[in-house]
Amino acid sequence: MYSGLVAALSALPALQLAFASSSPQHHEGHPLNSDHQGGRQGTKNFIYIVPDGYGQASQTLARDYVGFLRNGGDAQHPISVEIGADDLVIGTVKTYASDNLITDSAASATAFGCGVKTFNGAIAVDDDGSPVGSILETARLAGFKTGLVVTSRITHATPACYAAHVPDRDMESIIAEQELGYSHPLGSVVDILVGGGRCYFQPQSNENSCREDDIDLLQWAEDEGWTVMTDRASFDQVLAESDVAPALPYLGLFADSHMSYELDRDPAEQPSLLETTKAALGSLKKATESSEHGERCYFIMIEASRIDHAGHANDVAGHLHETLMYNDVMQYVQEWIDSNPDTQMLSAADHECGGLTLTGFDPYGLINSQNTPDVLGDMFEDYSGDDLAGYLRNTIFPLYGITNATEADVAEVIAMRGDSDWSKVIGAVLAREVGVNWSTGSHTAADVTLHGYAAEGKIDSLKARMSNNWDNTELPLYIEEVLGLEMDDATTALRANGTEWVPTMPVEERRRRRGLDLHAHHH
Amino acid sequence: MYSGLVAALSALPALQLAFASSSPQHHEGHPLNSDHQGGRQGTKNFIYIVPDGYGQASQTLARDYVGFLRNGGDAQHPISVEIGADDLVIGTVKTYASDNLITDSAASATAFGCGVKTFNGAIAVDDDGSPVGSILETARLAGFKTGLVVTSRITHATPACYAAHVPDRDMESIIAEQELGYSHPLGSVVDILVGGGRCYFQPQSNENSCREDDIDLLQWAEDEGWTVMTDRASFDQVLAESDVAPALPYLGLFADSHMSYELDRDPAEQPSLLETTKAALGSLKKATESSEHGERCYFIMIEASRIDHAGHANDVAGHLHETLMYNDVMQYVQEWIDSNPDTQMLSAADHECGGLTLTGFDPYGLINSQNTPDVLGDMFEDYSGDDLAGYLRNTIFPLYGITNATEADVAEVIAMRGDSDWSKVIGAVLAREVGVNWSTGSHTAADVTLHGYAAEGKIDSLKARMSNNWDNTELPLYIEEVLGLEMDDATTALRANGTEWVPTMPVEERRRRRGLDLHAHHH
Repeated sequence: MYSGLVAALSALPALQLAFASSSPQHHEGHPLNSDHQGGRQGTKNFIYIVPDGYGQASQTLARDYVGFLRNGGDAQHPISVEIGADDLVIGTVKTYASDNLITDSAASATAFGCGVKTFNGAIAVDDDGSPVGSILETARLAGFKTGLVVTSRITHATPACYAAHVPDRDMESIIAEQELGYSHPLGSVVDILVGGGRCYFQPQSNENSCREDDIDLLQWAEDEGWTVMTDRASFDQVLAESDVAPALPYLGLFADSHMSYELDRDPAEQPSLLETTKAALGSLKKATESSEHGERCYFIMIEASRIDHAGHANDVAGHLHETLMYNDVMQYVQEWIDSNPDTQMLSAADHECGGLTLTGFDPYGLINSQNTPDVLGDMFEDYSGDDLAGYLRNTIFPLYGITNATEADVAEVIAMRGDSDWSKVIGAVLAREVGVNWSTGSHTAADVTLHGYAAEGKIDSLKARMSNNWDNTELPLYIEEVLGLEMDDATTALRANGTEWVPTMPVEERRRRRGLDLHAHHH
Repeated sequence: MYSGLVAALSALPALQLAFASSSPQHHEGHPLNSDHQGGRQGTKNFIYIVPDGYGQASQTLARDYVGFLRNGGDAQHPISVEIGADDLVIGTVKTYASDNLITDSAASATAFGCGVKTFNGAIAVDDDGSPVGSILETARLAGFKTGLVVTSRITHATPACYAAHVPDRDMESIIAEQELGYSHPLGSVVDILVGGGRCYFQPQSNENSCREDDIDLLQWAEDEGWTVMTDRASFDQVLAESDVAPALPYLGLFADSHMSYELDRDPAEQPSLLETTKAALGSLKKATESSEHGERCYFIMIEASRIDHAGHANDVAGHLHETLMYNDVMQYVQEWIDSNPDTQMLSAADHECGGLTLTGFDPYGLINSQNTPDVLGDMFEDYSGDDLAGYLRNTIFPLYGITNATEADVAEVIAMRGDSDWSKVIGAVLAREVGVNWSTGSHTAADVTLHGYAAEGKIDSLKARMSNNWDNTELPLYIEEVLGLEMDDATTALRANGTEWVPTMPVEERRRRRGLDLHAHHH
């Protein structure tokens, strides 16, 4: 329907050069990049961190769990502890979409990535379907190095909104092409692409491919000079050869679809978000500190993508460990900024997910959780013995941390075997055991927490400026301000040669999707 | 059991004088009150506002409702609006009690009122049951004027923790005596006591009394020179005679128990929290601006008490309108501080209540809500006709805003007629209709939002100092700091003549209570 033009564009890698050459002045360095250095108060780089689907209760859950561990497991005598994100709270954020009080990740990332309120499902296009420039693209036009580091498919909504422009988040094959620069009107705007989603970069001839064409983006990237890593071994090798600061550009795709939940992750197979974050910041620093081309700055978006997925699945163990990893990243970035005071950070979720509440929270059940229902469901389906109930009681439940299952729980979890909602059924058993509640398998409308950090001498002015309740569209304006950028520049550049390169989507189709349960199908 | 000593003390009004005279130096003015004026950066007065039981979702609920009204009722095209508290967000607060990850209002108010972590149920006593000084008592010892303005019984946990010291929040007769100064070791420490709870101030001979003795605190207060108001007419008269700034001290008790929910409130019977707040601030300003006695400062705690009660009741309409009134008060206080730049404000809930989540929020159902289940339940019980189902469908449901009740809803609401959980059953019908969810009739563990405000020239330093995630015990330290006070002074004064005046409670009883469902019985 809309794919004709795009397929044609996609088939022409050279197109990027044509577009890129149409606005050469931007690549030579944005005027503000050199002249207005003073306006930035010494801030050159920006780190934006998205804990997708993380709500107020997610942080309390994680902190109370850590306190419980440190206190020897005594929930009757809570102690005060502080985890990575705690110290960085500065406000709250409104999240609604242009067409719904409850946003999805696409509309929200268009808001905080591009400063534009749009409809659910939209990837960096406005209500009319026209492309809007992201803060990453804006930074790129000003000569910045850039990165997107996530744990979902790199083609998922949040990272997509920084470097792709399509009216529907499900157009992930096209998103892959644009993110990489294969068919982006400004050429390649990202230097680091790390996460899952390998299947959208492989031609349909590959058995794992999610594409319906023959485009081989991995090969194309290699041909264009990208370092391409598709497994742990290659990541380790690249890190070892580069002193944990791989040369740009690089593409790291460590799973066909999303990367593993942190609780399920095999360190021998996949790096953690903390590891990929460290490598990306090392790379960006190295690439910008000694450049002779005026490219002295960087912008990076890091996403703890799967807090959201565990919320959709109503999986408290998975949600906890994704949130803990987010806090580890926040801790590391705080230390990074202390050592690199020319860098600032903001972090806020795109929306809450799952409606988690801590109704009678006792962390005990969570200390034994070793896998999420993502893995356990496969194990349960693969079981070929003749004692399903025994296998559930003796293997699956203990691996998830459940110790007090009833006969009714066993019957229900068996009845749902193989169902897409199986995670919610076993998730409800653990939720009851640890005293938490999920109210939905989708997103909610609640405000989310805003975090920010800057080095001494800048943190007070960050707080004075940004402590508040904000609309999510207002967040990138701060980044513009401290980096001396202007997002309109990117929008203008994107539209300079027309917008026919943006696939279209009929209004009726958009309306139909609007009525869907928000992204229960988007895990 | 513990009442012997206290009853004896209570019978001796003169006792307050003995205690008060034991620390006369404090009443002459705290050293910092005059000498360290500079340390306060020109801040003399502090307003602390508690939205009891208000969570992250409460604010989104209220704001989205206002946006819906302003937008002509189009939930498909949300607009950006800002209500009173929005502009004042600066952080988040941890709320756990010393004995439970989920706090009650007593332990939390002891934390943010006195800076001490204690057990659930404790009113300004520590884990050992010893009294701890509140920021209000500290301010009073330094010569400040003080006020407590609430919508619950004035003897309820939150206000109690500022001017009473007992190991159990249910000791409301003793709390009334201490709050008024009848049996407080420092004498009368509060100049303004406004809210409900008249029944604890009346002798058992009065038909509405909640006391089990003959103490007549209303009469005692009048004899001691307090202006006593017990209804709207007397409030109006006092306001008219004082240009909305009644002379201190005054006692306004506008209901036997809690004041009405804002949605149910008859303006001819009771003033709103906004009205009582305006009068109190007017009084405190007048009493301190021209004093010749060095009493130039004030501290006031204002509580939107019943956001919590509507949460316990799972009543979204009541919760909304209590939250809107809180926002109105926040708006007024913001304007007050703009006009009175020697004043600062902090505001945070004691805990979240009800586990409210906005799962598919559509404000439409709420625009027709005219009463809470508090009033509707009485109407339903009083109905003497022979068509309960018709009365429910044609009168009760419409008054609550319900338009889509099923036969099953009707049957269930009829079956629960007269039950203490009736509000939750009818509440669930409205919750379903407007797309929200309650997960509990009790409190949850989630962090709550911190708000703060100061006038231009001070707001930046307030944000720089207080934007963060705090333990609730850390909040009064900021008030100490800007007012140049030391809470240890109050604790020392309270304990100067021993602590036998504090009623005791056996440890087993405390443990038994600890196991109870938190305050489902404390509405």
